[in-house]
Amino acid sequence: MPRPAPTSVSGRPPAPLALTMGEPAGIGGEIALMAWLRRREQRLAPFFVIDDPARLEALGRRIGLQVPVRAIAAAAAAAVFDSALPVLPLALPAPVEPGRPDPANAPAVLAAIDRAVQLCRSGEAAAMVTNPIQKRVLYGAGFHHPGHTEYLAELAGGTARPVMLLACPGLRVVPVTIHCSLRDALARLSTALIVEAGMIAAAALSSDFAIAEPRLAVAGLNPHAGEGGSLGREEIEIIGPAVEELRRQGIQVAGPAPADTLFHAKARLRYDAAICMYHDQALIPLKTIDFDNGVNVTLGLPIVRTSPDHGTAIDIAGTGQASPNSLIAALQLAGEIAANRAAGAPAGSTLRSA
Amino acid sequence: MPRPAPTSVSGRPPAPLALTMGEPAGIGGEIALMAWLRRREQRLAPFFVIDDPARLEALGRRIGLQVPVRAIAAAAAAAVFDSALPVLPLALPAPVEPGRPDPANAPAVLAAIDRAVQLCRSGEAAAMVTNPIQKRVLYGAGFHHPGHTEYLAELAGGTARPVMLLACPGLRVVPVTIHCSLRDALARLSTALIVEAGMIAAAALSSDFAIAEPRLAVAGLNPHAGEGGSLGREEIEIIGPAVEELRRQGIQVAGPAPADTLFHAKARLRYDAAICMYHDQALIPLKTIDFDNGVNVTLGLPIVRTSPDHGTAIDIAGTGQASPNSLIAALQLAGEIAANRAAGAPAGSTLRSA
Repeated sequence: MPRPAPTSVSGRPPAPLALTMGEPAGIGGEIALMAWLRRREQRLAPFFVIDDPARLEALGRRIGLQVPVRAIAAAAAAAVFDSALPVLPLALPAPVEPGRPDPANAPAVLAAIDRAVQLCRSGEAAAMVTNPIQKRVLYGAGFHHPGHTEYLAELAGGTARPVMLLACPGLRVVPVTIHCSLRDALARLSTALIVEAGMIAAAALSSDFAIAEPRLAVAGLNPHAGEGGSLGREEIEIIGPAVEELRRQGIQVAGPAPADTLFHAKARLRYDAAICMYHDQALIPLKTIDFDNGVNVTLGLPIVRTSPDHGTAIDIAGTGQASPNSLIAALQLAGEIAANRAAGAPAGSTLRSA
Repeated sequence: MPRPAPTSVSGRPPAPLALTMGEPAGIGGEIALMAWLRRREQRLAPFFVIDDPARLEALGRRIGLQVPVRAIAAAAAAAVFDSALPVLPLALPAPVEPGRPDPANAPAVLAAIDRAVQLCRSGEAAAMVTNPIQKRVLYGAGFHHPGHTEYLAELAGGTARPVMLLACPGLRVVPVTIHCSLRDALARLSTALIVEAGMIAAAALSSDFAIAEPRLAVAGLNPHAGEGGSLGREEIEIIGPAVEELRRQGIQVAGPAPADTLFHAKARLRYDAAICMYHDQALIPLKTIDFDNGVNVTLGLPIVRTSPDHGTAIDIAGTGQASPNSLIAALQLAGEIAANRAAGAPAGSTLRSA
């Protein structure tokens, strides 16, 4: 399923990717440094970090990474990228101590996200990749969203309904309900919500992943997908009608299928994305298959946004133990999606995953 | 995690394993024939089928398998096993047409299960392995259980609380709630139920799997295990107290852990069984990892019972396309568990999985 690093598909070179600071006391800074060090072997498209250049330099010294850091404007990032990590400077009000988030820096954390959105909207960045944030630290700075995804939807104009897609090599999953209790997920599940997620996912598989005829698989909610109604009726009353509606909309879709039959290697060849009813139904198979390389993509936004599929890991921040793999995968996928959108995929594209 | 085929641990050779007919119009008969053909390469302990010898012979001819079938009494099974498939004869009232279950045969399907239980209780069989049944076909014959597991608990005396464990190479899972809707699973979940499942699982890991100091991992119910209560309170109110109680009982136990972090290869090394809150939380990772070799074990019974982790597959019955892998794994595990119980594991055992 993973494809080669993007190349310029239009006449001019693509804009660089914007990587946000995230929680500065978390691992975001060090995985950005590590990702840059692996830019050649991983064929990373040029990216810049929105962060404090001095603190990134100090962090590199602390963990023994030889990373030259260069303060630049976004437009200069691509030219600098090969020889230094380009940083769009953003002042941090308080000194950063790895492992100890300071609410005084919360406005800067949010400002980095806002700036990345602006740069994507103006075309100065091709896509944004967000380092993980610590929500509780941000609440004091006026942040009132369950996560990045909802905040970005608001910044992007308010009419977008963001949908989360998670991808690892060999699997893409789209949870219809996300960050709520399982009890709430059952209460919120509706035909309209499933249809909307399916429509947005199918459109994105086409425009962002260059899959000409996307195939969806819709998971059931109950054991054995309800076994004809004897183990739950949501498949009959909510999910089945959503599958029928998606089919009426011209989408290739199968289901509702028993969730435990959907995720082994052979089953995964039959679809391009699995539409899942709740968070763990999507995340358990994804993280079972590939714990370290998952990427989170926000579909349904006018801008391209991906993020590593892990948290701030403040317990190991500043030690150099963090793995940059998920961030690297997020940078690669952001570049691919931006290139596909720029190329107007899938017109003329015959690419197909699996 | 899988161990070599069992050898006799007492002075006398162990009793053979009893394999039930299951739904005769399903794939049970042909996978029994296939398993016998692979008895040497798979180092299978002697087993006999409780079935109609003539129909098994006809089935073998139909799908082109060279399997000599010999009608015997249970005691003669071991002597016959190397040269022929031993069959404890049971008459079927109606002719069997693969793919077309006939309710007239339902009493015989149940009689095969009853007979296997009797043989296990008398010591004439070391363990029983059950071929899949078609519950709806059995309802007319007075069967009123959600599955084999509950029926066996009743046959075994009524005081046992059966607990289902599913195993594949590298993973064992124990769902606390099983065959009910997800909504009902949420309603039924209680501290007492989790503690009971954990106690039975820990005892069985010791007596049946020869693990001297079993380690349990308990999964949370909600995304991120409730994230401190903001994504659901069951971890705080129900599951956490169960973990504490299990710990007070002297059991090595971790959790409640976010379910999506429990099942990747590294995480699985940290425990011997994962206690799961609902069917798909247990079955999604198991079948993602290994779709074809899962085995279902009923813990908490005075007899040993395993079964393949699949259904009757009536759509392919009689074609020879079915895979005997799960049945072979079930036969192997039944033999191992019987040998471990006979040896009084884990006294003197230093075996440890992972």
